[in-house]
Amino acid sequence: MSREIPYKIYLEENEMPKQWYNVRADMKKKPAPLLNPATGKPMTAEELGVVFCDELVQQELDDTTAYIDIPQEIRDFYKMYRPSPLVRAYCLEKKLDTPAKIYYKFEGNNTSGSHKLNSAIAQAYYAKKQGLKGVTTETGAGQWGTALSMACAYLDLDCKVYMVKVSYEQKPFRREVMRTYGASVTPSPSTTTEVGKRILEAHPGTTGSLGCAISEAVEVATTNEGYRYVLGSVLNQVLLHQSIIGLESKTAMDKYGIKPDMIIGCAGGGSNLGGLVSPFMGEKLRGEADYEFIAVEPASCPSFTRGRYLYDFCDTGMICPLAKMYTLGSGFIPSANHAGGLRFHGMSSTLSELYDQGLMSARAVEQTEVFAAAEEFARVEGILPAPESSHAIKVAIDEALKCKETGEEKTILFGLTGTGYFDMTAYQKFNDGEMTDYIPTDEDLEAGFAGIPKIPGIQ
Amino acid sequence: MSREIPYKIYLEENEMPKQWYNVRADMKKKPAPLLNPATGKPMTAEELGVVFCDELVQQELDDTTAYIDIPQEIRDFYKMYRPSPLVRAYCLEKKLDTPAKIYYKFEGNNTSGSHKLNSAIAQAYYAKKQGLKGVTTETGAGQWGTALSMACAYLDLDCKVYMVKVSYEQKPFRREVMRTYGASVTPSPSTTTEVGKRILEAHPGTTGSLGCAISEAVEVATTNEGYRYVLGSVLNQVLLHQSIIGLESKTAMDKYGIKPDMIIGCAGGGSNLGGLVSPFMGEKLRGEADYEFIAVEPASCPSFTRGRYLYDFCDTGMICPLAKMYTLGSGFIPSANHAGGLRFHGMSSTLSELYDQGLMSARAVEQTEVFAAAEEFARVEGILPAPESSHAIKVAIDEALKCKETGEEKTILFGLTGTGYFDMTAYQKFNDGEMTDYIPTDEDLEAGFAGIPKIPGIQ
Repeated sequence: MSREIPYKIYLEENEMPKQWYNVRADMKKKPAPLLNPATGKPMTAEELGVVFCDELVQQELDDTTAYIDIPQEIRDFYKMYRPSPLVRAYCLEKKLDTPAKIYYKFEGNNTSGSHKLNSAIAQAYYAKKQGLKGVTTETGAGQWGTALSMACAYLDLDCKVYMVKVSYEQKPFRREVMRTYGASVTPSPSTTTEVGKRILEAHPGTTGSLGCAISEAVEVATTNEGYRYVLGSVLNQVLLHQSIIGLESKTAMDKYGIKPDMIIGCAGGGSNLGGLVSPFMGEKLRGEADYEFIAVEPASCPSFTRGRYLYDFCDTGMICPLAKMYTLGSGFIPSANHAGGLRFHGMSSTLSELYDQGLMSARAVEQTEVFAAAEEFARVEGILPAPESSHAIKVAIDEALKCKETGEEKTILFGLTGTGYFDMTAYQKFNDGEMTDYIPTDEDLEAGFAGIPKIPGIQ
Repeated sequence: MSREIPYKIYLEENEMPKQWYNVRADMKKKPAPLLNPATGKPMTAEELGVVFCDELVQQELDDTTAYIDIPQEIRDFYKMYRPSPLVRAYCLEKKLDTPAKIYYKFEGNNTSGSHKLNSAIAQAYYAKKQGLKGVTTETGAGQWGTALSMACAYLDLDCKVYMVKVSYEQKPFRREVMRTYGASVTPSPSTTTEVGKRILEAHPGTTGSLGCAISEAVEVATTNEGYRYVLGSVLNQVLLHQSIIGLESKTAMDKYGIKPDMIIGCAGGGSNLGGLVSPFMGEKLRGEADYEFIAVEPASCPSFTRGRYLYDFCDTGMICPLAKMYTLGSGFIPSANHAGGLRFHGMSSTLSELYDQGLMSARAVEQTEVFAAAEEFARVEGILPAPESSHAIKVAIDEALKCKETGEEKTILFGLTGTGYFDMTAYQKFNDGEMTDYIPTDEDLEAGFAGIPKIPGIQ
């Protein structure tokens, strides 16, 4: 097999991006603004500043500046684990016997095990710069909490993580990684907050939910001097920071004269997919190039493929601003899909708008076929992928097999967001043949949609 | 801080070593040969060929060829996860406020999580080339078993792992990684072998030991057509394959004109340390350069610092050949130190001979200070180190702090052999302040030494 392209393309330090790319700047029709649920009016910087750091609020609201400088301190941190490799999947191609050329951008080579660190360090940096004492957040599967605790340890910033109680108990190793990095980790719901106490009174014995953990983290941030709340996905600022993934990918591909035909990423809240596609989507928006973009989501939580494009709450506690997005309703409870990072009822407003404009397609896949793809990938490519990332692997393999049938030599790029070391319970279920699939019925979805708020004059 | 040297030095694919380096070729006094315990005479290639693959037997016995070609197939596999980065520990230096320059060679960026994969792929390759059906091995902590299962999956070779029962039960995730890569994993002792049955009869309810698992794996290899036994450390062939670590390190340092003053590695059976120091030791042996080499071992299993240099069995079952090495006696049972990869009673014959000639020094460190160093390192450098690797970190930090006192700008290189994702139970103990130290008494050691065999005419 010819090897003009190395297995792994690493950029030199001086080739690493010095600016993030803000895809909203090139969108003619912008993503809809966040709304204040009390007034139905767009959230102001002042209102957002109660919850988020000032500079991050600016980034959240800025939909016209295309390139934003990455502060030197963040670039120094990036150099500790970036550039991440762009890998040519020679072994997978051979195994599939496909004429397709498959590349993946691997974001798992850092202790947090995923791309989440790209935004965690940025958000922690701006908190530090603002002179804050610390930040609060929630975590479900644990990747985001781990990434944030690493960033805070590096910057000597306090980090309070509210971890969904069921994960806290079932994933003690994730919890210990965060503690090793100095974070305080509280199982949610807890008695450390008013909202936690209320929930515990109403639902004694509850094992918690992401929505509840968000509510607790926001309460702690807004009631403690010197704290702000940070979030690992969905927001525009997160997509901005994550654009480093796409920018590095594009630079590496340009260096070797490679142009992808299709770009595939898993989609939960959109942090990875948005980051990966951003610079390529920019070219498409500016009419400079064309690419096919595919968002892959779990069939058990199909925001894009079966959701509605409406204003909805980002949290089940309904205390956060309203975002216009593809949503299953903030009361939709996804089944226990093992890809915890994709179990979110909504989707980034930016990606939702791009999808709505037909600039991107989406596919829903079931988890047993996802784990089968993960295992096939692991055995030939070596890397043990996270269940979330494996959604993208599944569709990349599907597309490569189509090329085998048609003889097309398509170039496929997909995002391998992280590693599955802390997901072995799920792999064990798969290995033991005990994994099942679940697709919500139309009735399940209707029940979720019923919770989407009616906003006078808007929807 | 000046940044002429990048955070991470990656070699280009064409700069990667094409040959392994065999340090024995440059030793005037060679390591002592393996002896047949029945005859007291050196093991012949024929005798070794019953247990090991033919080409590996040749490598084991060859103490004169300095450079041995790495087959193209193995080099292709190496390219999937190598070159591993040589990292300048800028953040650790800053934290310690030391004039020392600290570098580490990080071998954890692959799914096995350690350097073990470097030899696993080589041993699996030669087994495949010999037309074998599969290989057998034992694993304790699990790094080696994981690495071997990955290599076998890649080459489509059967892989039977005997995993010490207590680890099998306490480390289900490690077990599942191996199963995901298609290996069969059997808790040892088991009823699948004669020796396992005998042990279970004699010690019902035993949780197993590495020595017992070796015995089972060897029995399966020697009684099944088309199988051979493979081992992840101690042997000369393993040090040969692991020389890739030192060769890459040296190439990367040479590229930037860096010369280390001291080279530090953790030492269990010697696979990582031997590989890291080999090319540097070669220069020292040939009188071309001088370096200080420091082996770091756990105080609970102090083969170098308190052991005896004698012929001993490598396994507690006393069925393997005798090796001359620094040993605590094959009956020595190390306390439950969390660095499972360093709990071996003996040491590579090659390293033992180099140590005996005064070409290398050794230090024993206690595990609580090791975990404190690990945590300090993790918080500034990001990487969560394996307990084994952290032994080297501890001494590197000690040496850097000495430089702070003296003002010396020493250049320190240490081996960061792997990641600690599957060691969070140990980190939890440390985080909870429940970790204790254990140093064997002289009486404990005497009991171990009493088991070292008397060999007429030899010792």
